[in-house]
Amino acid sequence: MSILVVGSVAFDSIRTPHGTVDRCLGGAATHFALAASFFTEVRVIGVVGEDFTEEHEDVFHARGIDIRGIEHTEGKCFHWTGEYRENLNEAHTLQTDLNVFERFQPKIPDTYRDSEFLFLANIDPVLQQQVRRQMPKVRMVCGDTMNYWITGHSDNLALVLRGLDALLINDGEARLLAQEANLVRAAQRIMEMGPKTLIVKHGEYGATAFFGQHSFAQHISNRFFHAPALPLSEVIDPTGAGDSFAGGFFGYLASQTELTPAAFKRAMFYGGVMGSFAVERFGTERVRQLTRDEIDQRFESFRELSHLDAS
Amino acid sequence: MSILVVGSVAFDSIRTPHGTVDRCLGGAATHFALAASFFTEVRVIGVVGEDFTEEHEDVFHARGIDIRGIEHTEGKCFHWTGEYRENLNEAHTLQTDLNVFERFQPKIPDTYRDSEFLFLANIDPVLQQQVRRQMPKVRMVCGDTMNYWITGHSDNLALVLRGLDALLINDGEARLLAQEANLVRAAQRIMEMGPKTLIVKHGEYGATAFFGQHSFAQHISNRFFHAPALPLSEVIDPTGAGDSFAGGFFGYLASQTELTPAAFKRAMFYGGVMGSFAVERFGTERVRQLTRDEIDQRFESFRELSHLDAS
Repeated sequence: MSILVVGSVAFDSIRTPHGTVDRCLGGAATHFALAASFFTEVRVIGVVGEDFTEEHEDVFHARGIDIRGIEHTEGKCFHWTGEYRENLNEAHTLQTDLNVFERFQPKIPDTYRDSEFLFLANIDPVLQQQVRRQMPKVRMVCGDTMNYWITGHSDNLALVLRGLDALLINDGEARLLAQEANLVRAAQRIMEMGPKTLIVKHGEYGATAFFGQHSFAQHISNRFFHAPALPLSEVIDPTGAGDSFAGGFFGYLASQTELTPAAFKRAMFYGGVMGSFAVERFGTERVRQLTRDEIDQRFESFRELSHLDAS
Repeated sequence: MSILVVGSVAFDSIRTPHGTVDRCLGGAATHFALAASFFTEVRVIGVVGEDFTEEHEDVFHARGIDIRGIEHTEGKCFHWTGEYRENLNEAHTLQTDLNVFERFQPKIPDTYRDSEFLFLANIDPVLQQQVRRQMPKVRMVCGDTMNYWITGHSDNLALVLRGLDALLINDGEARLLAQEANLVRAAQRIMEMGPKTLIVKHGEYGATAFFGQHSFAQHISNRFFHAPALPLSEVIDPTGAGDSFAGGFFGYLASQTELTPAAFKRAMFYGGVMGSFAVERFGTERVRQLTRDEIDQRFESFRELSHLDAS
C-alpha cells in the first residue's frame, strides 16, 4: 500500500568528527522516502528550488519513489548547516535557511489521493495539519516533530497530535512535550494528547513503543515493546537516522496486509535496521545503495543480538 | 555452585524525589548477595562495625546467605549519604564515611575456599586483588568498579582487570576507563585490558554484553547481546540497582551446570529483572521480600517486551 510523506527535501552541510560535506541531498522527507522505498510505494509532497536538479531527482527515481508532488519554485532549497561533536547523539544547528520552504503551501496531486498511509515528517505543524486535513480517510497517520515546534508552536502542534495514530520522537522530545522526566509517565501523558501509540527513539540504545488504550496494537500483552539498536564502532553521520528509522518502521507496516502486533514488532526492528544503515555514510549515500538482502541480513543480526533463543 | 562476593556491607542515607531514608542496610555486597541468593548459594566477605546488629544479620540469614566471612570490628559501618534529583540515573554523593572499611584486610574463611564463582564488588582494587589472589582456582571471576578508582587508582585497577572473566560497569564508567566515546570501540579497548567479556549497564535502557576473542561466550554469532530494561513508571530508589543486576546475572550463571551462550543470555535478562525490582522500594526492601515466582514472571515480561515472537 502507498505511503504519502510530507516534509523537507533539502540540502545539508554537515561536519562530524569523520569529515564534512557541503550541500548534500537530505531533508526528513528524503531520508524517510528512501528508507520506506525498500518496503512499499512512496509518494512525496515537498518543495524545492532551482538548485534541485535532475541528478537529485534521479536519487528518488532510482528507488521508484513518486515525486510528482514535489513542487519546483523560484529560489533555493531548504538548507541546514549543522555539526556533531564527540557526542554524536546531539546535533548542533549552525544555520537554517528555510528558503523556498518559507512560502510552502502543500498541495496533494490527484494521483496521491488513494494513499492509505500518511507520514507527517518534522515540519511546521501548520503544514502537517494542512496535509492531514486533505487526507481524511487514510488508514494510519504517523508524525514526527522536534523541540522547536514543541516549545514555540504548541497550540498548532496540539491539533496535529490529536489526529495521530502514532508519534515517533526521541527521548528528549518526549520529556519536553510531556514536561515529565519519567519516560513511562511521559508516554502516558503524550498519548492523552492524541497519539494512540508513542514510539520513543533512544539513539544508540534502540527504541521503545508505548501502546495506549486505543492503539491498534493494544492486544500486545505488554504495554511496551523494545527494539534494540546495533552497536556500531563507527558512526559517520547521524543526520537522517531518525527519519530512516521512521521510513523502515512505517514502510514495513504499510507493506503488510494486516496491522497485527507481530507486524508492528517487526516494523520496530526494521526501523532500527534502516537507522543503523543511515549513519554509516554521509547523507543518503548508504541507504540509496542498499539491497533488500542486506536489510534482511541485518534484521537477523538484530534478532540475534536481542533474542534468547537465537544462535 | 557457590559464589563468593567481596564488597561493602554498609548503611545508606538516601534522598530521592520520593522521600528519604536514614541509615538503611545497603552496600554493594549486600545488594549483590540478596539478588544472587534467589539462584545459588552465596558467601560474603566484608567488614562491619558495632552498629551492625542481629536484625541486619537476619536479612542475610533469611535468604540463606553465608555471612561467616563478614568480620565484626570496633567502630561503625561504612556509611554513604547520597541524593538523586530529577534524573534518577545520577547519584550525587553528599558524604562517604569509610569507618571500619578504612583498615579492612579481607580474610577468606576455610569454608569459603571451594567457591567456584567470585564477584569483586565495587571497592578499592587493592582489596579486590587481595581476594582474587587468595582464590586462584575459581571458575569465573566478575568485577565491578567506579569512576573514583578509574581516575585515581588506575594502576591498581589494571591489575584487577587483567584477571577478570567479565567486567560489569555502566556507560559512563566504560567511556572513562577506555577514554573513548564510542561504546563499541571503548569495549574493545577495555577487553584488551583483561576482561574477556564486558557488560555495560545502560540504566533505563537495559544492558549490552560485548564478547571478546577469549570470552567463554565467543561462539555467540554476534559479538553483542542486548538485554532490555523494564519501563517503570516509578523509580523509588535507584541505589543498588547495578549490584542487583550483577547478582541476578552472576547468580543465574552460577546456578547453571554449563556456561553456554544460551545461559549467558538468560543471565543478562535475570540481571535486568533483579535490577528492575531493586528500584521499586528504598534500600533492600523489595528484593528481600521477593519470590522466585515473581522473578520468573518478570523474566517473561522481559521476553515479551523484546521478542518478536512473544505474544
